[in-house]
Amino acid sequence: MDIAVRLEELREKRNALTGTLGLVPTMGYLHDGHLSLVRVAKQQCDHVAASIYVNPTQFSPNEDLSNYPRDLERDLQLLENEGVDLVWTPRDSDMYPDHFQTWVEVGEITTLLEGSYRPTHFRGVTTVVAKLFLAVLPDVAVFGQKDAQQALVIQRMVKDLNFPIDIVVAPIVRESDGLAMSSRNTYLNAEQRKAALALSQSLREVEAAYQAGERDADTLRKRVLAVLNDEPLAQPQYVSIADPGTLEELHGEVTCALVSMAVYVGKTRLIDNMLLGGERPSA
Amino acid sequence: MDIAVRLEELREKRNALTGTLGLVPTMGYLHDGHLSLVRVAKQQCDHVAASIYVNPTQFSPNEDLSNYPRDLERDLQLLENEGVDLVWTPRDSDMYPDHFQTWVEVGEITTLLEGSYRPTHFRGVTTVVAKLFLAVLPDVAVFGQKDAQQALVIQRMVKDLNFPIDIVVAPIVRESDGLAMSSRNTYLNAEQRKAALALSQSLREVEAAYQAGERDADTLRKRVLAVLNDEPLAQPQYVSIADPGTLEELHGEVTCALVSMAVYVGKTRLIDNMLLGGERPSA
Repeated sequence: MDIAVRLEELREKRNALTGTLGLVPTMGYLHDGHLSLVRVAKQQCDHVAASIYVNPTQFSPNEDLSNYPRDLERDLQLLENEGVDLVWTPRDSDMYPDHFQTWVEVGEITTLLEGSYRPTHFRGVTTVVAKLFLAVLPDVAVFGQKDAQQALVIQRMVKDLNFPIDIVVAPIVRESDGLAMSSRNTYLNAEQRKAALALSQSLREVEAAYQAGERDADTLRKRVLAVLNDEPLAQPQYVSIADPGTLEELHGEVTCALVSMAVYVGKTRLIDNMLLGGERPSA
Repeated sequence: MDIAVRLEELREKRNALTGTLGLVPTMGYLHDGHLSLVRVAKQQCDHVAASIYVNPTQFSPNEDLSNYPRDLERDLQLLENEGVDLVWTPRDSDMYPDHFQTWVEVGEITTLLEGSYRPTHFRGVTTVVAKLFLAVLPDVAVFGQKDAQQALVIQRMVKDLNFPIDIVVAPIVRESDGLAMSSRNTYLNAEQRKAALALSQSLREVEAAYQAGERDADTLRKRVLAVLNDEPLAQPQYVSIADPGTLEELHGEVTCALVSMAVYVGKTRLIDNMLLGGERPSA
């Protein structure tokens, strides 16, 4: 497995790979969710590259950039075990050199849900992903459905700017008790870890209600909130029943919907989601 | 010479070209300035592609989008005569399909000079050029020094976002009497055409002053303005003596400077520039 830090190193090692290349962009502190993305990339391409970069521009000043968990040595071992060919671990100075001043911004769909609480988040995501794409030049890039809005925003960017890259979105990977895997789960103490189950529990309940025939968006939203409100340690920031393509909030009868939420458990902000009735749309 | 309209056509025809590819992005109504860019691309690359697209997003509502001169048939003939391999002539619906909402924006250096009078101009330029680059995937792209700030902004974007493309900036091509070639020169009537010589005349005078040892930025700026003010039909919008890298306005003693101006002659807005003392910087 080749490891590159500087852009020039990366380009050289990438150019040595012939055949198709799949990219898995990550912020490191890898878990089985990330590794599932690597496996999807491996199925679809001759070679797999991963990036490990905790991108400062997608964190707000009040967010957890400095505390974000890191374990590069373990990450590299995990990627090597999965048969990854090339890993890019750029430093901040490689990614944002002096005089850096160019941003890629997606419009409307970044202003809703996560974007409404994290106003500069998606600008940071789309800019760094554009840079990763242009550095690695993959044929396929794999993102997780865990960050449902992010996946949609990346698909929009790729289509709008003509990136010659297929975006593949892989399903959420959960712990055996239902908690969606996240590097941020490491912030939770034992009590909080248990309380965090309220998110996946609320999704299972809304799915059951939907399967039993409930189609009213406001009723479905209330079902999610009721489960979350039952857990004293869980503080919902938003609960959304939205159009899976536009992310606009739905009211009245729905056929398909993206159920998503952001919930604080202690100081840890967790997100989870589920698609009801239908396939994941692309941009 | 292959001509493509839809993105898929373009990709197919581009993929059929082996070896290196140079791109010359244009808004059509070609003159010898454009053709000089084609010749530079041809010198540097195995193949040359050109695009012809009057990009609406770089025009403000009060600008000349609907009147912008067009002559596709003549343009294609000129490009064929130069041995161009591939021309992309997208329609607006190919470039900005429904739900389009992604923009590439360069910061500080787009707020000065042209950007201060055309606040959404460079956002349109960088977005469409990013799209052209990602569609055509050239090794080299050639821009004219006539649009000095545009060339610098594109170089900044390419560096900041890791585009794997060499940007080449080719010298201004002038009519025999000194007028910088521009598709907009066609707007000028005979009297205005004569008055428009004030721009290049002012540059020759400031160059002579610089060569005679004048180094004070404010004095140099005044020399340009004096020539322009001598021409009753010329109405300067700005005259700038700026740092060629940052585009910040200079005062006091200068070693090298970008002299640039925008001047209305009638309703036609003309620009011109000259670099004093030194090479053109890159991002």
